[in-house]
Amino acid sequence: MRKWLFCLVPFFSSAGAQVDSAFFKKVFDEALLNGHAYARLGELCKTIGPRLSGSLEAEKAVQWGKTMLGTYGFDSVYLQPVMVPKWERGAQEGLWFSSKTFSRSIRSKKPVDYNCEAFESRPLKPSGKYQIPGVALGGSVGTNGMLKAGLVSIHKDIELDSLGKLGLLKGKVVLLNRPFPEQYLNTFKAYGACVGQRVNGASKAAMYGAVAVLVRSMSNRCDLHPHTGVMIYDEKQPKIPAMAVATAVANLLDRLATEDSGLQVHLQLNCKMYPDVMSANVIAQHKGNAFPERIIAFGGHFDSWDQGEGAHDDGAGCMHAFEALRLLKQIGYKPRHTLRCVWWMNEENGLRGATEYAKIAGANKEIHVAALESDRGGFTPRGFGVDSVFLANLENYRNLLNSYGIGDIEKGGGGADIGPLKKYFPGAVFVGFIPDSQRYFDVHHAETDVFENVNKRELHLGAAAVAVMIAILDQQLD
Amino acid sequence: MRKWLFCLVPFFSSAGAQVDSAFFKKVFDEALLNGHAYARLGELCKTIGPRLSGSLEAEKAVQWGKTMLGTYGFDSVYLQPVMVPKWERGAQEGLWFSSKTFSRSIRSKKPVDYNCEAFESRPLKPSGKYQIPGVALGGSVGTNGMLKAGLVSIHKDIELDSLGKLGLLKGKVVLLNRPFPEQYLNTFKAYGACVGQRVNGASKAAMYGAVAVLVRSMSNRCDLHPHTGVMIYDEKQPKIPAMAVATAVANLLDRLATEDSGLQVHLQLNCKMYPDVMSANVIAQHKGNAFPERIIAFGGHFDSWDQGEGAHDDGAGCMHAFEALRLLKQIGYKPRHTLRCVWWMNEENGLRGATEYAKIAGANKEIHVAALESDRGGFTPRGFGVDSVFLANLENYRNLLNSYGIGDIEKGGGGADIGPLKKYFPGAVFVGFIPDSQRYFDVHHAETDVFENVNKRELHLGAAAVAVMIAILDQQLD
Repeated sequence: MRKWLFCLVPFFSSAGAQVDSAFFKKVFDEALLNGHAYARLGELCKTIGPRLSGSLEAEKAVQWGKTMLGTYGFDSVYLQPVMVPKWERGAQEGLWFSSKTFSRSIRSKKPVDYNCEAFESRPLKPSGKYQIPGVALGGSVGTNGMLKAGLVSIHKDIELDSLGKLGLLKGKVVLLNRPFPEQYLNTFKAYGACVGQRVNGASKAAMYGAVAVLVRSMSNRCDLHPHTGVMIYDEKQPKIPAMAVATAVANLLDRLATEDSGLQVHLQLNCKMYPDVMSANVIAQHKGNAFPERIIAFGGHFDSWDQGEGAHDDGAGCMHAFEALRLLKQIGYKPRHTLRCVWWMNEENGLRGATEYAKIAGANKEIHVAALESDRGGFTPRGFGVDSVFLANLENYRNLLNSYGIGDIEKGGGGADIGPLKKYFPGAVFVGFIPDSQRYFDVHHAETDVFENVNKRELHLGAAAVAVMIAILDQQLD
Repeated sequence: MRKWLFCLVPFFSSAGAQVDSAFFKKVFDEALLNGHAYARLGELCKTIGPRLSGSLEAEKAVQWGKTMLGTYGFDSVYLQPVMVPKWERGAQEGLWFSSKTFSRSIRSKKPVDYNCEAFESRPLKPSGKYQIPGVALGGSVGTNGMLKAGLVSIHKDIELDSLGKLGLLKGKVVLLNRPFPEQYLNTFKAYGACVGQRVNGASKAAMYGAVAVLVRSMSNRCDLHPHTGVMIYDEKQPKIPAMAVATAVANLLDRLATEDSGLQVHLQLNCKMYPDVMSANVIAQHKGNAFPERIIAFGGHFDSWDQGEGAHDDGAGCMHAFEALRLLKQIGYKPRHTLRCVWWMNEENGLRGATEYAKIAGANKEIHVAALESDRGGFTPRGFGVDSVFLANLENYRNLLNSYGIGDIEKGGGGADIGPLKKYFPGAVFVGFIPDSQRYFDVHHAETDVFENVNKRELHLGAAAVAVMIAILDQQLD
């Protein structure tokens, strides 16, 4: 995250006269004193909870969203139907191991490691078979009963190939154990560096005869919460079950695999794909007065994984967008373009909502001049990733953005849900909202992504940041 | 929090050659990959816990600190004795109210307010008298048995005077209910705007005949955790008991005071002052090679309130300083000045440690060229408050600081514990470490200021930020 490097003396152009320091103050004051995002996120998380695409909860959430947005007097609120995939976890999965050395190992009184909220605090009861937390990865096939095999732990992609070629993965459960590279300041960069083993690891292991994979959770924390997420099969390989294991569990299994050649893991996954079902994007908009036919779209994804409550991922992003629209309306801002808040369905395992949204916009010639996405959680805002063509337009707002702590501007504005719009509107400005990234992967796709882990002020500051950026886009674009 | 405004082209002076981008990377990599601060904070919080000045726990903590620091091979580790005040809470205090209207009020099914983690989730059992959470403020006298009186809720200082002059506070318990001004981006500014009612409110109310005060917690959160903190009596007024009430409790009592003229509160405080006892500042240092007799001191306060575990306040600041010293040693940095990590005792209710430290430094002519304090919690670092004389020296490091997200530089470097040094070393450079402030007052002085609410990466990034600033001071000063 770089501050930007040009050093022009900041003067305000008359074009942006409506968006000045008084405007910033009004937006931030309203967000911090009377913000709605937090309470609405609470309702969503606590009365509906997680909303995996195709689930009953996703359907309930869509209806809740339409009704809730309908109470705010926006110019229009509507649903945009879209078919989505339906994968279900089924009955709670289970993961166990059996090891002759473990009961000895756990009895050895090693000092408590405060770096890891794990076995010290919740010791496993010795018995023949130890249950440990694990959850199916999204899209995985089931095990069709109990599956039992020896374990091989893999730390690097190259190890998978070398052991595989020696035939050592045949009939084994493979633990894909490449950890987060902790040294990256930006945790999304760390995620990018190891998420491949979750998405494609099962088929790579299957190619060498593995019968299942356990995937180390993509997280900075050492704890007992497994993090799910999408996995994709290579149709040329046998489809083997894939399960996420918590970081502390991955560490334990890795150690046991070294100590105990007789280590066995047992797993049962009851998950299954079903035919596609109908769902919807949820949309609220406010008409522009100068260019009503030209649209600035901003939003997050409304579906979530079925662990936790999808609070940060991406309830927060949806609430940022709704609240930005509300804030601008509430303070009496008159948009030049039509401002459209979009909650895209099915980002997590298909991107169908975003794809459909872009297709319809393209077909109907709903000209998009800009699109902004918030899908990095509800943490303290730091800045934005912005298409390089628009960087010069931000120069006038530089000191203002800095004074509100949101002046970290990166080149390149992206996001999965606004991505498909680029094909139809290549000239539009794409912007990604960037909050502080340090805590995101503590909770991402895990049972801990709940409302309690969202901070009200952080969420509301994010909404205010999105609102002022939308207004800047509205002022600076034609 | 402003980014700084000058716009010189950044070139590195040869003076700072040791502190370049490779140096920054080494410090941050070591902190993020192998940081010690988090695990040591865990030990402190979980094996000792809170450490109020003069308590047995504070004494244990001092011994733990000396032993722990002694394992790191620093040039010297020693204790600096200092007498501190001793105030004890005694047996758990209690707060109740009795109201005829409340049971009706609680039965009316109002919708859940997700803005407040409060009564909806933990309903009070109807009975004649309802117990609500409250804790004595530090320094308060006890009630000498149960105290019972009507309640008057005060929202502004001016109300206290106007009602007081009308004789309406006589014999009453006064609720000092001025809330945090939520609109301030910097929560420390909000704290400053209302902490006066906690520190001086009791004596002001006593002047008008009040028999006790309840003080609304200095917090952004609406919840059921009371936040304690220091209060000071005006010796000219009667000393009346003073208790902190949680924000949600203050809201409830405020409402009941309007609805029910018969509202009574009952309180019992068992706290007491004792004679001063001996304690100590804990110090670890690394000798400089160019100016060993010239010192750069940096640290936090080692005492805490007796609620929670003093994790953010100020275990985090102490660990920042220790870890900064360790990081610089670990990566082989050769300091020009003597680097001294200081854990000051008794910041919370006396500042005796800092006062003694400065006095001894002055008397012994231990020349301090700079002092840095960390007492704003273990959150993601944003920058520093820096004496204006030193701002130009930072210009060379501007892009580096920005690229690590710590380029928010404010004028004016302060902190309670480094304050007393200014008298003896007016030419020294004073620096305050500034992390993100949004969550600090959620937990400050409350039972929620525990290790679990500290994030490992955020803490370690803070330590790395302190380390690089110490090295910059070391390079730039003579």
